Amino acid sequence: MTTAKRDTYTPETLLSVAVQVFNERGYDGTSMEHLSKAAGISKSSIYHHVTGKEELLRRSVSRALDGLFGILDEEPAHAGRAVERLEHVVRRMVEVLIAELPYVTLLLRVRGNTDTERWALERRREFDHQVAELLKAAAADGDVRGDVEVRLATRLVFGMINSIVEWYRPDGRGMGEREVSDAVVQMVFGGLRKEH
Amino acid sequence: MTTAKRDTYTPETLLSVAVQVFNERGYDGTSMEHLSKAAGISKSSIYHHVTGKEELLRRSVSRALDGLFGILDEEPAHAGRAVERLEHVVRRMVEVLIAELPYVTLLLRVRGNTDTERWALERRREFDHQVAELLKAAAADGDVRGDVEVRLATRLVFGMINSIVEWYRPDGRGMGEREVSDAVVQMVFGGLRKEH
Repeated sequence: MTTAKRDTYTPETLLSVAVQVFNERGYDGTSMEHLSKAAGISKSSIYHHVTGKEELLRRSVSRALDGLFGILDEEPAHAGRAVERLEHVVRRMVEVLIAELPYVTLLLRVRGNTDTERWALERRREFDHQVAELLKAAAADGDVRGDVEVRLATRLVFGMINSIVEWYRPDGRGMGEREVSDAVVQMVFGGLRKEH
Repeated sequence: MTTAKRDTYTPETLLSVAVQVFNERGYDGTSMEHLSKAAGISKSSIYHHVTGKEELLRRSVSRALDGLFGILDEEPAHAGRAVERLEHVVRRMVEVLIAELPYVTLLLRVRGNTDTERWALERRREFDHQVAELLKAAAADGDVRGDVEVRLATRLVFGMINSIVEWYRPDGRGMGEREVSDAVVQMVFGGLRKEH
């Protein structure tokens, strides 16, 4: 995501600059001045596109949330046994996280000081809840272990997946998206231990 | 960790206030003024104990690192098959994380702007490396799956464990330390899926 200065700005390119600056400086630590400098356009040009930095935050986290909630609308998230639907959702969560890396990173760092941040946290909780419900259904089917409480298991699975934003860099040298999503699915469902 | 104002300060109580302020404001965002206010003692009283905030950071992250490296010196981390040693280390990592919650939280947030932060990151990498070596040995024994690359598996396991600092609160109402460490061991080694 290189965002060199350019003459013509679209809301899309402005968003990609904003999310980068928010991730580097924190949302609270970002001023319109910082955004203007990073984008290489004047503050008034930014105000031509958006009402202010909170709108840029809302658009950024919406993009991450739309990606995540979109998963739940996909056919394989509805069809078949709960455990298979859960596996689909887990794999796609990793794919969306990697495809929308800066947006999901920002979403995960939101802390709740503004209306937009509180709204984003609420939507995250709703998504977590829906995945927890799927896990509960899979446990009721007897397909996943019953000895770990559903809410705790959900938190640990989300913890593993969300931690990917801390180290994954799409630089072409490291691991591919497929290697990471395969690994997460194998670890989450099968665990490390190989039975003899 | 309530840290009310008190008349006599020890380096230990000062440390518990400092780690709390660092976690709330970020290390960069914390001044000696903030520490003085939170501790309810003068800045010169703080300088009586330490040379400055960087020493408080070093002592705080040292406490977390000593806890983590201490695990590797424990008998069960040396004796037996690699997979059993790894299981001990994973369980104890969760226990140390919970026992030293604010200190490990701070360690995980360190970003590397000062010598102390760079040193802490280096020590974290060394710990990660030693756990990865244990995982590699367990894979060589044929006790853990060989289809997930060791470095990636290590990152995902650390991701799951470290994410606990985001939500675990020792308020007595929620989950106990034992429930969390059992769940992590079961998920990491056995995975979610129950085979029929």
